[in-house]
Amino acid sequence: MRLFNKIAIIGTGLIGGSLALAIKKKGLAGEVVGVSRKKATLLSARKAGAIDRGSRNLSIIKGADLVVLAIPVDTIIDLAPRIRRFIDRNCLVTDVGSTKERIVSSLNKIFPNYVGAHPLAGSEKRGILNASPGIFKGSLCILTPTAKTASAALTKINLLWKRVGAKVVFLTPAMHDRILAFTSHLPHIIAFSLISAIPDKYLPLSSTGLRDTTRIAASDDEIWEKIIFSNREQIINSISAFESSLSRIKRAVQRKDRKAVTRFLTQAKSKRDTL
Amino acid sequence: MRLFNKIAIIGTGLIGGSLALAIKKKGLAGEVVGVSRKKATLLSARKAGAIDRGSRNLSIIKGADLVVLAIPVDTIIDLAPRIRRFIDRNCLVTDVGSTKERIVSSLNKIFPNYVGAHPLAGSEKRGILNASPGIFKGSLCILTPTAKTASAALTKINLLWKRVGAKVVFLTPAMHDRILAFTSHLPHIIAFSLISAIPDKYLPLSSTGLRDTTRIAASDDEIWEKIIFSNREQIINSISAFESSLSRIKRAVQRKDRKAVTRFLTQAKSKRDTL
Repeated sequence: MRLFNKIAIIGTGLIGGSLALAIKKKGLAGEVVGVSRKKATLLSARKAGAIDRGSRNLSIIKGADLVVLAIPVDTIIDLAPRIRRFIDRNCLVTDVGSTKERIVSSLNKIFPNYVGAHPLAGSEKRGILNASPGIFKGSLCILTPTAKTASAALTKINLLWKRVGAKVVFLTPAMHDRILAFTSHLPHIIAFSLISAIPDKYLPLSSTGLRDTTRIAASDDEIWEKIIFSNREQIINSISAFESSLSRIKRAVQRKDRKAVTRFLTQAKSKRDTL
Repeated sequence: MRLFNKIAIIGTGLIGGSLALAIKKKGLAGEVVGVSRKKATLLSARKAGAIDRGSRNLSIIKGADLVVLAIPVDTIIDLAPRIRRFIDRNCLVTDVGSTKERIVSSLNKIFPNYVGAHPLAGSEKRGILNASPGIFKGSLCILTPTAKTASAALTKINLLWKRVGAKVVFLTPAMHDRILAFTSHLPHIIAFSLISAIPDKYLPLSSTGLRDTTRIAASDDEIWEKIIFSNREQIINSISAFESSLSRIKRAVQRKDRKAVTRFLTQAKSKRDTL
């Protein structure tokens, strides 16, 4: 069932491309147009059936009743004023950025019908060639409405994410950033740090444990530099919490306190078993 | 092709059970017998076709020409003197323990035909019900011969692991423990510490990143307490190396040094991409 007449996806990469594919598959829009800096990406997106038309020029979004910003967190903020020139007041705007406080506070001022969103459906892979309409099925999508959010816009963005299969959760932008610092940003920092700590010559003897633990260290480094600096304080906070936790088991090992080590491991295991 | 007449597997869990299944499948032994503390495990092992006969009593291993110790690292050392009573001098003995220096130095004194081994084929799962004959295919198996190792025994244990599909690598016990502290023990400590650091109430908002990064924190806590204390100094060493690496990115984030953060992430990603 059609929810929008014309949806414009700015950034047809892994998330933007997958969302476009899901929208097309479910028939949620009359037309889907895509914007990318790269011609090859637009060609692949058209070939995959994710978009009807694509352009490197923002003017293609004219007349859209929904614009989705699926680009790196810094670029969302930088591009917003230029996007406003091409759409009218009634156009809904949403984004899929991994951090929300800075983006929401900035975009709330620019767009009268903006709703912040963060689908937890990424992976270490990227690009339209890895996109798939099914990645949102059963995944969580966090919406971050504020007192300024138009309720009609919220209802419709909520419906969009439900239709592509996501379970929708509402959080304030600040709470989103505090929680995701722990559940997403910290694991990335840890994975990057873990692989850094392993001497190169030992890598050929790595096990599946190391491979899984560091999988997300293969994520795009530029994207992650931007995420880190858009949620800097909460991330520093989460690193400190991790450091205490690691230092607790390290000290127990150092002082040969087998009981304390067992207690630590048992608690950790039973917590992990609930995931 | 038959390599042994009677193989005794002490501990028919994930690794012991999988090895027994692979031995049966490839016809590498005339008979495979199993020892476990639990009757239910022995019944499952027989039902799965991993062993021909099973017993909770060590006397079942009499007449074996190969004994495989597939039990926790502490138990390997504790049980070795009792095992010697049931076998003769020519019987080959090997183990699958995750640390090697203590085990090899202890078992070298007890068995004239002992070869230390560590197949890198575990997982966070355990038990005969998760066993499969294919888990060694394409995996690494580290053998840790010393000057005391009988060369005929080494040749035959090498052949056994090759026949079940493993790529065999030779290391000294000390080098094994130093390397595995980084490539296996450290990732486990990090996974246990990471899940510990996440506030309980944030867990429902975890992403696949957190799930993968902490998968091995679902590993058996008792087994890991023993592994940690059998390779204590090397593990403390690897934790310290990780702490420096984490502190390097944390300080760069704190002093807003975007270039240093980018450099750190880029190096980590390109290292991970080689895995």
